[in-house]
Amino acid sequence: MLMKNKLYFKLKNKKIQEIAFSAICEEQKNIGYYALPEQNITPILEYCKTIPERIKNIAVIGIGGSSLGAKAIYEFIKPTRKLQRKLYFFESTDPINITTLLSKIDLEKTHFLIISKSGTTVETFSIYKYIYSLKNDSKSYTFITDPGSPLEKYAHKIGASILDLPNNVGGRFSVLSTVGLVPLALSGIDIQALLYGANTLKKSFFGAGYMQDTLLKKAVFYAQNHAQYHINCIFAYSETLKYFCEWYVQLWGESLGKKQRHSAFNVGLTPIGLIGPKDQHSFLQLLMEGTRDKSVTFIKIEDFQDDIVIPDISLPHLESLDSLNNLPFSKLINMQCDSVIKALLEEEIPLDSISISKVNEGNIGALMYYYELLTSLVGELIDVNTYDQPGVEAGKIILKKKLNSLS
Amino acid sequence: MLMKNKLYFKLKNKKIQEIAFSAICEEQKNIGYYALPEQNITPILEYCKTIPERIKNIAVIGIGGSSLGAKAIYEFIKPTRKLQRKLYFFESTDPINITTLLSKIDLEKTHFLIISKSGTTVETFSIYKYIYSLKNDSKSYTFITDPGSPLEKYAHKIGASILDLPNNVGGRFSVLSTVGLVPLALSGIDIQALLYGANTLKKSFFGAGYMQDTLLKKAVFYAQNHAQYHINCIFAYSETLKYFCEWYVQLWGESLGKKQRHSAFNVGLTPIGLIGPKDQHSFLQLLMEGTRDKSVTFIKIEDFQDDIVIPDISLPHLESLDSLNNLPFSKLINMQCDSVIKALLEEEIPLDSISISKVNEGNIGALMYYYELLTSLVGELIDVNTYDQPGVEAGKIILKKKLNSLS
Repeated sequence: MLMKNKLYFKLKNKKIQEIAFSAICEEQKNIGYYALPEQNITPILEYCKTIPERIKNIAVIGIGGSSLGAKAIYEFIKPTRKLQRKLYFFESTDPINITTLLSKIDLEKTHFLIISKSGTTVETFSIYKYIYSLKNDSKSYTFITDPGSPLEKYAHKIGASILDLPNNVGGRFSVLSTVGLVPLALSGIDIQALLYGANTLKKSFFGAGYMQDTLLKKAVFYAQNHAQYHINCIFAYSETLKYFCEWYVQLWGESLGKKQRHSAFNVGLTPIGLIGPKDQHSFLQLLMEGTRDKSVTFIKIEDFQDDIVIPDISLPHLESLDSLNNLPFSKLINMQCDSVIKALLEEEIPLDSISISKVNEGNIGALMYYYELLTSLVGELIDVNTYDQPGVEAGKIILKKKLNSLS
Repeated sequence: MLMKNKLYFKLKNKKIQEIAFSAICEEQKNIGYYALPEQNITPILEYCKTIPERIKNIAVIGIGGSSLGAKAIYEFIKPTRKLQRKLYFFESTDPINITTLLSKIDLEKTHFLIISKSGTTVETFSIYKYIYSLKNDSKSYTFITDPGSPLEKYAHKIGASILDLPNNVGGRFSVLSTVGLVPLALSGIDIQALLYGANTLKKSFFGAGYMQDTLLKKAVFYAQNHAQYHINCIFAYSETLKYFCEWYVQLWGESLGKKQRHSAFNVGLTPIGLIGPKDQHSFLQLLMEGTRDKSVTFIKIEDFQDDIVIPDISLPHLESLDSLNNLPFSKLINMQCDSVIKALLEEEIPLDSISISKVNEGNIGALMYYYELLTSLVGELIDVNTYDQPGVEAGKIILKKKLNSLS
């Protein structure tokens, strides 16, 4: 068992659960991300061997779905382990950000991964052009894009490495494809274990295991109550999950904020990522006493490796704090989480809690696949196309016109 | 003029504006943060001289209002300038986080600021005890707390430095008090310029300048429409504003998520911080096509110092991207912002945009004071006590019981 998920809300609607499950089984035939946990990673591992050992930094030039997944996993694992290479993410056209990132890396020891499905992402290519003008050496670049795209032709022309994106996998569902796996494998993260975790979750869901009933119940609750509880918070009790929360925000918001397929309505579930205990001192007041429009999912890590203990020191005038003495920090942070769960339950806020045993690849793989399945289920139930993003086109068209009017 | 603020929504209700203004003028007599821009900072600068030059790191042990403000300003300024000292923030009981932070600093070159209003914050003192067990030297610690608190007595007893918190200034409004100014001054940030910026904004508001009408209009719009537009997003077009957004989330959420003073209702305005262009690839779809419950404030930086230019390179097969050539990144990022503004206006999403001239102390001081005033105004209009946080007590009491039952 990679993770546990306890639902604190009650719901009985077996029939809607069955409808949702059938829809997902049907969808699975056409949507590419479902099959990713079973992929053969030999080509990725073979590619990694072509990157020389003197390369110490991998810089990902990509934005949104092309960076958030790998960043979430890298930032989760990194604090607990010495990795083979560092990852850097160029995700912004902010000149201060580009200059700051470049000042941190030795270009001679850096390999760049340019990740773009369409091959024409403005952010990615403005940054690529800038960096290419500093390091005009095609062996320093690998391109990850759709087969047959103009970008693939360009990469071929300059003699750079090319890796394909799999079919029918959208950006925000692509973390377990080449998009996420290549930078992670190059950093020294065990991508086989990552996929194994995702696959265990997948089998549990599709094979009528523990996760099937749990995920279906949760999805039906979110869908049935989406008009009231339309803000869905994750409250993760570890700093290591900070970028997982950013990945979740894209997955949830961009998938579920849509015009309905068969109505004239705009619907949407708004994701918010919180980190405990820090956000107990920021967002908790609003959860406790604000408008009753939020559900909360707590995420706990049971066993923090390299735990440390609060020493047995009594401070004069501050003896009331002696109850903390000899307590491992891992126990304290989880007690803080349990206390907030209890306080929110007393306010009848709809909650659930997810526990993962520790920080490793299998657990984050399972957690991300869990959220992908949950997103697909809720999307099906609230009648949206989970996999497109027509709303972002308008801004791109306006920008293109502005750019063309410059020349 | 430190900043400009253009409102894209129309509103005429002079009478409510007058009521809000009177209420704030009245409130100003009792609430301490209003006076902070005019304070005498000589004692802070004198204190800073007592910290020896060999100290290269300042570690803040504090959480919520005791860290978010200084962090926001430090992370805003830091990428643009070489500062005298580095700041580190211990804000979590996550053992992985504590260990990771400690691995980055040389204890011999580090001075610790322990910031706690009550003097009994669990997170702060569990971390303090741990660090004190590693560096048992009272000259390495300064305590910032309420005069007369048990913490002040403790600090006095061990012979450590003590700085007072001013009266009637709550944590989330304390950035311009010792809480924010001391770490910032020690890092080499110009706190006089910071206060000057805040004071300019203050004078414009209270002295019937440009900001009076603008802030009043905006506050009345938010308050009158809070039942529909109850999610208030900031979309800031620079990575330097990332932690400003976190500060805003606490200020807005904890101040405005409350039981109303004169009703039985829970109300609340939910803050969300977004960074462009990154979140164009994450949250924008939800803004464009999701439920119409969000307002958006864009923040732009007009002049990025040390700007860089997209080189004049044409990539074979990717000639459509040639329109980017020779464009400064600062111009591109602001064109991206303008394009998204236009796209959202076409969807009739309520918007406004704030422009600041560049990254410096005066501008961030003005921006933060602007948000403090806006929060006070909206709190007054939606009938909540902006300055308390009763909802966070329940979890603290439960935790205390759990801790006491351990021993």
